[in-house]
Amino acid sequence: MNRQNAEVTLYDTTLRDGAQMEGISLSVEDKLRIAERLDHLGVHFIEGGWPGANPKDDAFFQRAKGLTLRNSTLVAFGSTRRAKGTVEGDVQLAALLASEAPVITIVGKASESQVSTVLETSLEENLAMIRESIEYLRSQGRRVIFDAEHFFDGFADNPDYAIACVRAADEAGAEYVVLCDTNGGSLPVDVFNATHRIVSELDTRIAIHCHNDADVAVANSIAAVQAGATQVQGTINGYGERCGNTNLLSVIGNLKLKLGIDVVTDEQLAHLTETHRFVSEVANMPRSHYQAYVGESAFSHKGGLHAAAMAKDESSYQHIDPGAVGNTKHIVLSELSGRGNIAVKLQEEGLEAQVPQEQLSALLEMVKQREAEGFQYEGAEASFRLLVQRTLPDYTPPFELVDLMIIMEKRRRPNNLGSGDEESLSEAMVKVRVGGHLAHTVAEGNGPVNALDLALRRALEQVYPQLASVSLTDFKVRVVDQGPGGTGAVVRVLIESADGEHTWGTVGASGNIIEASWQALADSMEYALLPR
Amino acid sequence: MNRQNAEVTLYDTTLRDGAQMEGISLSVEDKLRIAERLDHLGVHFIEGGWPGANPKDDAFFQRAKGLTLRNSTLVAFGSTRRAKGTVEGDVQLAALLASEAPVITIVGKASESQVSTVLETSLEENLAMIRESIEYLRSQGRRVIFDAEHFFDGFADNPDYAIACVRAADEAGAEYVVLCDTNGGSLPVDVFNATHRIVSELDTRIAIHCHNDADVAVANSIAAVQAGATQVQGTINGYGERCGNTNLLSVIGNLKLKLGIDVVTDEQLAHLTETHRFVSEVANMPRSHYQAYVGESAFSHKGGLHAAAMAKDESSYQHIDPGAVGNTKHIVLSELSGRGNIAVKLQEEGLEAQVPQEQLSALLEMVKQREAEGFQYEGAEASFRLLVQRTLPDYTPPFELVDLMIIMEKRRRPNNLGSGDEESLSEAMVKVRVGGHLAHTVAEGNGPVNALDLALRRALEQVYPQLASVSLTDFKVRVVDQGPGGTGAVVRVLIESADGEHTWGTVGASGNIIEASWQALADSMEYALLPR
Repeated sequence: MNRQNAEVTLYDTTLRDGAQMEGISLSVEDKLRIAERLDHLGVHFIEGGWPGANPKDDAFFQRAKGLTLRNSTLVAFGSTRRAKGTVEGDVQLAALLASEAPVITIVGKASESQVSTVLETSLEENLAMIRESIEYLRSQGRRVIFDAEHFFDGFADNPDYAIACVRAADEAGAEYVVLCDTNGGSLPVDVFNATHRIVSELDTRIAIHCHNDADVAVANSIAAVQAGATQVQGTINGYGERCGNTNLLSVIGNLKLKLGIDVVTDEQLAHLTETHRFVSEVANMPRSHYQAYVGESAFSHKGGLHAAAMAKDESSYQHIDPGAVGNTKHIVLSELSGRGNIAVKLQEEGLEAQVPQEQLSALLEMVKQREAEGFQYEGAEASFRLLVQRTLPDYTPPFELVDLMIIMEKRRRPNNLGSGDEESLSEAMVKVRVGGHLAHTVAEGNGPVNALDLALRRALEQVYPQLASVSLTDFKVRVVDQGPGGTGAVVRVLIESADGEHTWGTVGASGNIIEASWQALADSMEYALLPR
Repeated sequence: MNRQNAEVTLYDTTLRDGAQMEGISLSVEDKLRIAERLDHLGVHFIEGGWPGANPKDDAFFQRAKGLTLRNSTLVAFGSTRRAKGTVEGDVQLAALLASEAPVITIVGKASESQVSTVLETSLEENLAMIRESIEYLRSQGRRVIFDAEHFFDGFADNPDYAIACVRAADEAGAEYVVLCDTNGGSLPVDVFNATHRIVSELDTRIAIHCHNDADVAVANSIAAVQAGATQVQGTINGYGERCGNTNLLSVIGNLKLKLGIDVVTDEQLAHLTETHRFVSEVANMPRSHYQAYVGESAFSHKGGLHAAAMAKDESSYQHIDPGAVGNTKHIVLSELSGRGNIAVKLQEEGLEAQVPQEQLSALLEMVKQREAEGFQYEGAEASFRLLVQRTLPDYTPPFELVDLMIIMEKRRRPNNLGSGDEESLSEAMVKVRVGGHLAHTVAEGNGPVNALDLALRRALEQVYPQLASVSLTDFKVRVVDQGPGGTGAVVRVLIESADGEHTWGTVGASGNIIEASWQALADSMEYALLPR
């Protein structure tokens, strides 16, 4: 248990290892937005991708030069030089240098059997690959981190060779040597013992990189820190191949609140829940309500007994103060807490003074009803604000829908060869009451929702020319009930809009995707016209 | 690390603590079905509920008498007698006896501060409650397990009192004393040390009961076993209040495959994945694809480098043989694919012999191209298979689209009050070449995609009546590029279909959501008609 009070750093690989998770696909834009949030959270290293492996990662490093990061350093990931090759002639090392990332992590084998079976080279050549690659990158002015792949399995089989690999990296000038539980099959006691051995053998800093195949990745990472490791690698929400990587959010909570290691500041810690939600939304992955520290149900109390004990002593069924990680306690099925939530929300939106206390219950009922139908006001504050506004007696909506109609056609034009080209058309017609008149417009679009967007704007801009500055910056669709509903399932549409000054989110939900899109679209325009 | 080879038993509380999870509601019938599966899996104790606390649990114990359990013993859960009461006059202890369960677990406090703040009684009275309740149930011929609630927090605050509580239970005749991490906030090292102390102080058997609030419940349970505990309590899939209980499936995998403790037989272990799926279905909870050992993605390999290494050595990226827990390996296709992935995938799909080696690169290029357009073949193996089939010279598609048209209307019928009701209509017309004829059909649906589904079926079922057994079980929509595309962004649709025997996934991608839905729908039907 030495070095426990040394500075521990956080290394995030959501953008590289996290993107390996089945179901995740991140655009360059997504990656840039996530990188900014990681910086905000106070993560020390952000691994951005593998330059040269795919064009998207090259583009990321190009565009990332424009980011202003206050806390984080960008890292490019790659592998050691090829067996029997030279560092100067290695295309991949060249791509890593070309990324201009100040820190480069290179992965190499630390397992005898992996070297002979998978690399199919000699044990000496593997050591040379590690040593020469690191020395070369160091000579080019880069800081280097060495990922010892298959370290724990390799250490169990042949500890001397595993140690020789990490020693080679240390001697070549690696800033950190990363002990990887590549297959995720190790248990905490084994990770503790192996890490402790390496910490006592090497002078360089030791990092830990785990996967969750045995459902103990977070515990393995904590055990490594307790054994003297001073960097934890992981991903937001534990994204990653197979069962995922170490969940960095859980690690941050445990290090900071259980072990008193200040990996982030108190202010940064309060962004933990927000980071969980933001990254889930951008990755378009369903959020686990039950996720430690940050899940919506992480501090929910359902049992009557528990709720009663909670009233006497908050620490009865809460291991920490939820506010410390930006989360909130939640008593399930309790009117009181519901009212409290609504009140907090109104306060947040500056609507507190406008809604009389006695209307709170009715509003809570309405929100519950809408949520049961598939709406969700998290990330759709503009729709929530409109919901409230519409209950106020003096509210007049800026426009009202009368009719809408959509036509979509796809036709094959036969040619001489019998195959033919395809032609596709989407049109929307909208009739809207606006400024005391009926506006009836039609537009063609790239798909029915786009056509609807254009037709609505055409109708409204006659009266409200300021809408020209409103653009829809994001459009997300999610099936609410993943049950056996097939194509009749309820769909939720979330739209994000901006006018150059503000950004706002709106929501729609329906069994009909066009209807849901219409609701979110119309809310977006109506919100843009609210006096502020 | 003593007693490691003693017999370790499994205690499942899915039906009681698991049912406390937000979002779960189990009927008596559900509980009976789950109990049968737990018995099949080889769980030693099944906690069925809290008799007297709610009528559903009373009904469960009545009906459970009719179950034939070969491996499991039923347990009723309740609390010690009330403070200052008598055991004979305690309504709740009477209900426990009336359940006729052979084993009774009673919960009592093992924390000084909980006794004074929440129970609001004296430390001596709490010890008497524990002792007298256990002695009374023992005198009535029942086996008793004692749940030491808040044990770890209590031990940290006042170890002597925590030990006095568990000693009282031991002396009164408890078969197991259960050390509970009620708030789920402990870390493995602390659980190990406290458990080790109790194991060395008491003669009775020690059990461990953890919650996942610090994301280390499984590791805590394993640490307790390594410290000498001989029973692990948990729930299937880790269901439970807040962040859940210890996931018993992960514990079984780790004890059996990592520590060599035979908590279940090899045959029973092979039911692990099936148990995960069955309980998820009955509880109507979405399955986590990423769950350790049993998730659909637990042995999925996405990176090209990983797939290539897997072909050389299966243990490269798998910590166990997936077959041991009834799961299977799975190679995922994605933008990160290499030739290795494609080749393995073809092998899995039985298409290896049909595709010549020299076409592999062309196929890989095609997959990359389609993925750049927004398609994703992970989870859409049927679309991948069709992609391959269509490149083969002798393939004739079972049907071809000629035209399609969709009309969607939303109209307001004005009433006397000036507001009015809304009316919505979605119709699809499809012209398809099938069986040498043109079929032209129309259908109305709950939204345009549903209408399209119905119209296509109407056209195809004239020639292929077997399609009547095909149902769409899931429909997912995702915006591919979250950049500033607004309503014109590319959308990916994933459809999951089933015919009672097989399940398959298909994908579509387009800037037009209807077009993307059409592609996935048409692929689903075409795949259903492939000869297998």
